[in-house]
Amino acid sequence: MSHEPLTVHIIARMNDYQQSASAGEFELIAALKRVLDEYTSAPSVIVGIGDDAAAVETETGALVLTTDTMVDGVHFRRGEANWSDVGWKSAVSNLSDIAAMGATPQHALVTLGVPSDITTADMEQMYRGMADAFAEFGGGIVGGDIVSSPVFFVTVALTGAATVIDGKPEILQRDRAQPGELIGVTGLLGGSAGGLRSLNEHIESGEATVLKRFHFRPVPRIAQGKLLLSAGVSCAMDVSDGLVADLEKLCAASEVGAILNAASVPVPPELKALYGNDATILALTGGEDYELVFTAPFDMMDRLLAHHRGQFTYIGRIVEEPDGDTRVTVFDAAGSEMQLGQKGWDHLGAR
Amino acid sequence: MSHEPLTVHIIARMNDYQQSASAGEFELIAALKRVLDEYTSAPSVIVGIGDDAAAVETETGALVLTTDTMVDGVHFRRGEANWSDVGWKSAVSNLSDIAAMGATPQHALVTLGVPSDITTADMEQMYRGMADAFAEFGGGIVGGDIVSSPVFFVTVALTGAATVIDGKPEILQRDRAQPGELIGVTGLLGGSAGGLRSLNEHIESGEATVLKRFHFRPVPRIAQGKLLLSAGVSCAMDVSDGLVADLEKLCAASEVGAILNAASVPVPPELKALYGNDATILALTGGEDYELVFTAPFDMMDRLLAHHRGQFTYIGRIVEEPDGDTRVTVFDAAGSEMQLGQKGWDHLGAR
Repeated sequence: MSHEPLTVHIIARMNDYQQSASAGEFELIAALKRVLDEYTSAPSVIVGIGDDAAAVETETGALVLTTDTMVDGVHFRRGEANWSDVGWKSAVSNLSDIAAMGATPQHALVTLGVPSDITTADMEQMYRGMADAFAEFGGGIVGGDIVSSPVFFVTVALTGAATVIDGKPEILQRDRAQPGELIGVTGLLGGSAGGLRSLNEHIESGEATVLKRFHFRPVPRIAQGKLLLSAGVSCAMDVSDGLVADLEKLCAASEVGAILNAASVPVPPELKALYGNDATILALTGGEDYELVFTAPFDMMDRLLAHHRGQFTYIGRIVEEPDGDTRVTVFDAAGSEMQLGQKGWDHLGAR
Repeated sequence: MSHEPLTVHIIARMNDYQQSASAGEFELIAALKRVLDEYTSAPSVIVGIGDDAAAVETETGALVLTTDTMVDGVHFRRGEANWSDVGWKSAVSNLSDIAAMGATPQHALVTLGVPSDITTADMEQMYRGMADAFAEFGGGIVGGDIVSSPVFFVTVALTGAATVIDGKPEILQRDRAQPGELIGVTGLLGGSAGGLRSLNEHIESGEATVLKRFHFRPVPRIAQGKLLLSAGVSCAMDVSDGLVADLEKLCAASEVGAILNAASVPVPPELKALYGNDATILALTGGEDYELVFTAPFDMMDRLLAHHRGQFTYIGRIVEEPDGDTRVTVFDAAGSEMQLGQKGWDHLGAR
């Protein structure tokens, strides 16, 4: 699931591990933004289209709003995932957007598009998975809509309360990175992509079981989002389309560049065990990890790593890009630049 | 579009003018409500599943939340409606839910499920229709999601600010009707159903043009919802599934019965001109009128009719139903009871 409003979800994600929205899809987003720009936008909008969630000022406080959809055959395949996992993930993809703003999940509206061959028991299971995720991480279903549809889809819209610091609502935003800051991530990356790969390869080992759990039962970093805010961090987003792809969006929004140390990117030991050197590639490009990537000045990052051992990992730094090229440069352990080739990420030196 | 959270949208509405959700669909709603009941619901929920919108207490005020979806081939047919009208109606069906709570529309999230054969120009038109409706009646698009989907759908989730009266947030609810109260409606009924019928019958007259406009460009009664609240009304809902069907829901929620005077139900003159005696039937069962139906004590109704001439019409009264039968009894001009037969509503006396 994509985590920015008005961003295209990627069909290809079902089949490989690269982001591959077509030029037409990006054109559509740009065109719709232009339409909205013709209308006077409400002065109450703090963060609009382009971040993980929208943030708006209401008469009495700041509210964070997000929505995310899963379509059968596009974002999951019926029969491969159990319905409870579909529900869990549809809740988590939205919870993760709220986490990426440092906010507290509140109220969810759930829309189901239901084909005639779906049973009540299927939907009960799905609802249970969804309700489990909200019970664990905050928020709850308060309403929704059920419609007939030739294809199954589930759309969740979720509100969040902005974290208040010194009496003022504060949110994490992706456009706040500054040159010289370090880049950190929560948790482990690549597990979801590894789970999907082991699923496609019909691997049934213990490692595969662990990785499939990363894929079907991702965890939104609600607590960590708030912790980052209270530590003084102002720039973050969640990793939904892949670390490099999402970091590129953060760089574009912040008008900076980034240098990433591939060897520093934390991966699950099971991913390393099952896929060896591919583990890093999966971690760089995988998507659906729902971890947070953030930036912080050296001292702040230092305190975060020291005080919350194991929760955050330092993986690179933000650099200036005077020529307006906001790209992410990736180095391997040997210090060679890696590059995305036709077959995914590759070591430049090995070509 | 249905206007209560977790209510099934009706495929059959495309083909006739009767509500016809299958038993299976109602069973699904009941099953999902039971799942949610197993989880501790948030104490912040003022009005949950079952009203036009949910109403929740936030740290700093009351918020109204609603969502509504249109699926191609279910709620409209591509080619018959222009995209701008699809956008308009998808906004209005949500705005109408906010109107039915007496609230003020605020922030919308828009999810598009987009098949590959839909063009950017189509979506721009749709967005324009949507943005036009928000510009006219309040609220604005602040984010959303675009996903690939084999069938086109548009889901809007909309927040509203509850009206504050004497420093206290107040909302209209459908479960507040009291025996002895009179029943009123805003505007005219049956126009949308007449428009759909003239569309299906390929009628191109001036009357048909007016009725098609009722169908494609309905108006949400935002101002009237607030006016009702400030006049002291506490019970209302919007007419989305048909006057009798929706009034039955209001009666069920309030545990009362209703008597409706069919001849008092206001219809567009064009509907009368084109469809004669069927006009009343279309007004009773049509759906998608997006008018408000409400109840009020005699004096309050009297003041409303006197002070806002032409905006509200008295059409019946709320009665006690000691046997728990919350049905709506409809009388024609001659005082004979009308009943829904196999072919729609009919005069009992004429059988």
